[in-house]
Amino acid sequence: MPHINLRDDLFGITSLLDFRKETAAPLCELTQVLLRGDSTLTESERELIAAYVSSLNDCVFCSSAHTSASCLLPGGETTGMKPMLDDLNKFNITPKTRSLLQLAAKVQQGGLYVQQIDIDIAKDQGATDLEIHDTVMIAALFSLYNRYVDGLATRRPADPEFYIALGTRVTTRGYKMPEDGYHALQYKQ
Amino acid sequence: MPHINLRDDLFGITSLLDFRKETAAPLCELTQVLLRGDSTLTESERELIAAYVSSLNDCVFCSSAHTSASCLLPGGETTGMKPMLDDLNKFNITPKTRSLLQLAAKVQQGGLYVQQIDIDIAKDQGATDLEIHDTVMIAALFSLYNRYVDGLATRRPADPEFYIALGTRVTTRGYKMPEDGYHALQYKQ
Repeated sequence: MPHINLRDDLFGITSLLDFRKETAAPLCELTQVLLRGDSTLTESERELIAAYVSSLNDCVFCSSAHTSASCLLPGGETTGMKPMLDDLNKFNITPKTRSLLQLAAKVQQGGLYVQQIDIDIAKDQGATDLEIHDTVMIAALFSLYNRYVDGLATRRPADPEFYIALGTRVTTRGYKMPEDGYHALQYKQ
Repeated sequence: MPHINLRDDLFGITSLLDFRKETAAPLCELTQVLLRGDSTLTESERELIAAYVSSLNDCVFCSSAHTSASCLLPGGETTGMKPMLDDLNKFNITPKTRSLLQLAAKVQQGGLYVQQIDIDIAKDQGATDLEIHDTVMIAALFSLYNRYVDGLATRRPADPEFYIALGTRVTTRGYKMPEDGYHALQYKQ
């Protein structure tokens, strides 16, 4: 049961965005810019960074949702992942993407864990300053999300169909706050 | 030296906000709502949560800046802290504020570290759902900031005068992005 009084037809982050719309609006906007804005990283790669950090933080809701989104986006079908796959170390990705995931894993531990060698490896694989910046910021953003979602003990469905439906929603509609508020996700077959 | 090419007259978070204004705008807005928006927590208490989490993450830039801000705000002068004080466990605060700091410390470790007893203690001390929400979200936000600032190895001044000047700026001007961009902070005596 959540630690605060949240709508019981909403799950995970959605129930929190609904609870406090003043904080939800800029948080959604930040996520939209980082995960859907112009970038030389694909949307699937950026979702993968989000999923990987969430997996390292044992945040089932976020890792399932963003693994699903990463798989559904162009390029994601070749990574060999499945929604709710629990071993994100086995995917088929480029050396550059792998170096950025390794950087994200350091950020997940803490900012001071990042060493010059992590940056050098990413740059050797062709990563730009902006790609390195965005990787660190996505990893930091999901360090926020995972703590927010689990720190308030939000509800999470066990049904994999939920995360496929949620991944479909964020890959088609993005992360901006819906103007008409949050609705329960229809996912039952 | 920072891991990416940042303006060398700016320090810490300011150099990152300047580097990527598309992400800076919503991040500043989120911070403004949480730390300066309407709340039954004082601004000094909210800055203290930010400082405490940053201290636990060994983020010298953020813990120094927000300790300074907390001390400069109304109520902060009685906490017994000084800017750049390194032991945040010794302050003179109410039992409710202490229970919220203990909750924030759990969130700093990870969302799954928060237990029902942490919430029960805070509620017994009079904390509302919104105060608990905002405490968790501030702790999560500084889990982001600390990773962002140190993960990209931003520069930080050693001079305590810098943090007093920075604390003065955020307590008088708040966190919204300045319309004319970021300027170097004048702090030399």
